[in-house]
Amino acid sequence: MKNLKKISELIKGELKGDGSIEIKSVNSPSRATPDEIAVTVKDSIDTEKLRAGALVVRKGSSISYPNIIFVDDPYVTLAELIDLFYPEIPFTDGIDDMVYISGSADIGKNVSIGSFSYISDNVKISDNCRIDSGVKIYRNVTIGKNCRIYSNVVIREDVSIGENVIIQPGAVIGSDGFGFARDSEGKPVKIPQKGIVSVGDNVEIGANVCIDRSTLEETVINDNVKIDNLVQIGHNVKVGKSTSISAQSGVSGSTEVGEKVIMAGQVGLSDHIKIGDNVIIAAKSGVSGNVSQGKIVAGIPHQDLMSWKKSSVIFKNIDKYLERIKILEKKVRDLEEK
Amino acid sequence: MKNLKKISELIKGELKGDGSIEIKSVNSPSRATPDEIAVTVKDSIDTEKLRAGALVVRKGSSISYPNIIFVDDPYVTLAELIDLFYPEIPFTDGIDDMVYISGSADIGKNVSIGSFSYISDNVKISDNCRIDSGVKIYRNVTIGKNCRIYSNVVIREDVSIGENVIIQPGAVIGSDGFGFARDSEGKPVKIPQKGIVSVGDNVEIGANVCIDRSTLEETVINDNVKIDNLVQIGHNVKVGKSTSISAQSGVSGSTEVGEKVIMAGQVGLSDHIKIGDNVIIAAKSGVSGNVSQGKIVAGIPHQDLMSWKKSSVIFKNIDKYLERIKILEKKVRDLEEK
Amino acid sequence: MKNLKKISELIKGELKGDGSIEIKSVNSPSRATPDEIAVTVKDSIDTEKLRAGALVVRKGSSISYPNIIFVDDPYVTLAELIDLFYPEIPFTDGIDDMVYISGSADIGKNVSIGSFSYISDNVKISDNCRIDSGVKIYRNVTIGKNCRIYSNVVIREDVSIGENVIIQPGAVIGSDGFGFARDSEGKPVKIPQKGIVSVGDNVEIGANVCIDRSTLEETVINDNVKIDNLVQIGHNVKVGKSTSISAQSGVSGSTEVGEKVIMAGQVGLSDHIKIGDNVIIAAKSGVSGNVSQGKIVAGIPHQDLMSWKKSSVIFKNIDKYLERIKILEKKVRDLEEK
Repeated sequence: MKNLKKISELIKGELKGDGSIEIKSVNSPSRATPDEIAVTVKDSIDTEKLRAGALVVRKGSSISYPNIIFVDDPYVTLAELIDLFYPEIPFTDGIDDMVYISGSADIGKNVSIGSFSYISDNVKISDNCRIDSGVKIYRNVTIGKNCRIYSNVVIREDVSIGENVIIQPGAVIGSDGFGFARDSEGKPVKIPQKGIVSVGDNVEIGANVCIDRSTLEETVINDNVKIDNLVQIGHNVKVGKSTSISAQSGVSGSTEVGEKVIMAGQVGLSDHIKIGDNVIIAAKSGVSGNVSQGKIVAGIPHQDLMSWKKSSVIFKNIDKYLERIKILEKKVRDLEEK
Repeated sequence: MKNLKKISELIKGELKGDGSIEIKSVNSPSRATPDEIAVTVKDSIDTEKLRAGALVVRKGSSISYPNIIFVDDPYVTLAELIDLFYPEIPFTDGIDDMVYISGSADIGKNVSIGSFSYISDNVKISDNCRIDSGVKIYRNVTIGKNCRIYSNVVIREDVSIGENVIIQPGAVIGSDGFGFARDSEGKPVKIPQKGIVSVGDNVEIGANVCIDRSTLEETVINDNVKIDNLVQIGHNVKVGKSTSISAQSGVSGSTEVGEKVIMAGQVGLSDHIKIGDNVIIAAKSGVSGNVSQGKIVAGIPHQDLMSWKKSSVIFKNIDKYLERIKILEKKVRDLEEK
Repeated sequence: MKNLKKISELIKGELKGDGSIEIKSVNSPSRATPDEIAVTVKDSIDTEKLRAGALVVRKGSSISYPNIIFVDDPYVTLAELIDLFYPEIPFTDGIDDMVYISGSADIGKNVSIGSFSYISDNVKISDNCRIDSGVKIYRNVTIGKNCRIYSNVVIREDVSIGENVIIQPGAVIGSDGFGFARDSEGKPVKIPQKGIVSVGDNVEIGANVCIDRSTLEETVINDNVKIDNLVQIGHNVKVGKSTSISAQSGVSGSTEVGEKVIMAGQVGLSDHIKIGDNVIIAAKSGVSGNVSQGKIVAGIPHQDLMSWKKSSVIFKNIDKYLERIKILEKKVRDLEEK
């Protein structure tokens, strides 16, 4: 239980109302009870149905509520409140039994490793890392400080991971790129994949994501990139800082994605193309060529979003335009026969 | 070996033919041998090529065969016959060595747990559950009776699973939702994901599926839902009873899918939309808005299936319509010049 | 360090230049240093920027370089050079501690098995197989010689794997097919999946791939098939020899894919269709019917690639054609009123 006035100070907010009430948790506006605090990022909200003990809104908002706190950025405040009421519980303390750790591995201070994890030769795990259960880390992998690696993640040899990286369960980093030559009979021949994967700081990698290594070059995920579940990152791809890639999207080999790009779900990018900074790619798009910075694109193949929307509306009713062509043809015939 | 007459009684069928023959297994019509029984769900079938010792068909079918059994629902009969001839073999008996089970975990009667599985604090596993090898179950997870959890599944903290649930290998339940705010510099800031995932009774979850938890709300998979491999279920999604979702489909955050919905493969649903009961969504559709109950939709963005089919046929030959426009333009010019 | 003359002999090349220099590794043309060798598969290349100690090119190429080796197939040479300079390092030697191996399993000579792997009853693992950590192999599985199974792969019961097969981390072979009947109330009823999966020789299966078993029939992946990450292969599918399937593609149940087919990324194939030999399917296509051999197709639903390209170009500007129809309609009205 925390006092509302104290909470308001912690989140650097301006409180109007009764600072003496006790708050036991944070919840969403529709679910919060009188002993909980809620946060809304919206500028208007039907407060009549709310039962929350206190409501956090954006500064300048016209929302009124008995106990209300105004803050600069409600999203950031929400993150702070959740951290306050839901302190992180480590998976385990220290090194569990039934863990394999190579004698040549270098394990930092305050590292936890869950049972059935495998730490191979020359692996370096930096301070404060939490490695859950069943994580397999191949030789020569380096992991920076404060990383959280969830269960059953696999990190192949020679991969480097930055600081404060979160990897959700089942992700695979450093799998072989899909590199084959075809011999004279058309039979595929594997090109060995010995390149490395570098993951920057503050990156998050979703569940069951795959990030491939290349033949000899480097696959790079830069700082602050956020990758959703079941995404495929091909070999030798570069993803720029602060880009986010939604679920089930795929980036083909050697493609370069700029900074602060937003890829919605189930997007596909062709190989060897360049996506500029701040590009937005609508869900399910198939991008087959370069996209210059700041563009918003959609469609298979991609085009400008607005143009795609126009075309899509016409496509839906295209049989009617065909009908109009037929009518025109008849009328023109009639005119010609006159 | 089982006597055909006895089999006919077990499946509540009407036998015509020789009930005395011995049957050793069930097989598909094209593969069944004279000591095997086969089931067809079709209403007509070329029986000349069949070698099966007996054939099961739907009541009222005009198919004739020397030894034939008529049943109400051949699909249900097929399931019964497979259960008869292929009794389930448990992965292991009881609790294997090399398992981690927290002292605070509550393990029911007749539970099996394979080596290298991890059962964390306050986990409840109910009677008759079979947990294979390498399954990682985080704290406070509850699992109902008679569940089968295949190898290398990961179930994150606070998830609840109903009774008779089957989870195929590699699935991840309760991974963090893809929730980020962007700070004033456009850098993504993680919103902690502390919500829960509730999975109902008789649900099946495919291999390498991902089901996300949300910030504070609940992701819900209702009773009898069937989810195919590599499906993504976003945070705070609700999936209604008896809905089936085919492989590689994705449901974005906070979307509500009704009951008995059928989603074909590689479908994508936008976030915050509602799909009514009994909706059918064709493969590869991208659904960007609400769909009212009973509709059949296709396309990106979606439209009525029939309308989409018409539009698609025209699209294939659209260059010909363009040609007709050009011809019209010429003719009209000629007419104008007259 | 290896002498350039010796290297040239090993790769059966024709060397022009100084055979006495020492080479320490192979690298890509843009990254190779004076003590490294590089390979280009291109027919022209800007050699001015290159720093490589030697360059390998195709016989007959007009590229000139101080130390140059001409070979028949630079791709094959690249594979050979990588094998030369990056010898495979086994994950582990022999059988690790903390492995479960059933007493009835048959383990060949020179097999390595990493910790936390599970080898069930009646499994046969042939000579020279390398099974990494956390691999779960169910009963009655057969694995041919020289296979590499990366960490956290799951192979379900009764699956057979050929020789020289590589399975990337997290792949699942033999998961239950998505087979359900609907009862009279529309509730899905599981059809048990007891079929088998057969994987041929020289197959590669990508990370987090899923290959399903069927009710009673056989799912077959023939020799030399290459499957990229996150691909879904449905129950009872047959994939012909030397076919390659790129990331995030899916093949629905009972579909037959011919030999040497090339499927690009995020392709979907409907169920019960046939794809002929040597077919090429463009990225993101949705193939809803048979495709005869040698065809190149694209689109949803698929059509000939060239025709699809034409239609797509028109689609992008379709609002302009609509405009032209409107103009025609006005002109025809004017003409009619004359």
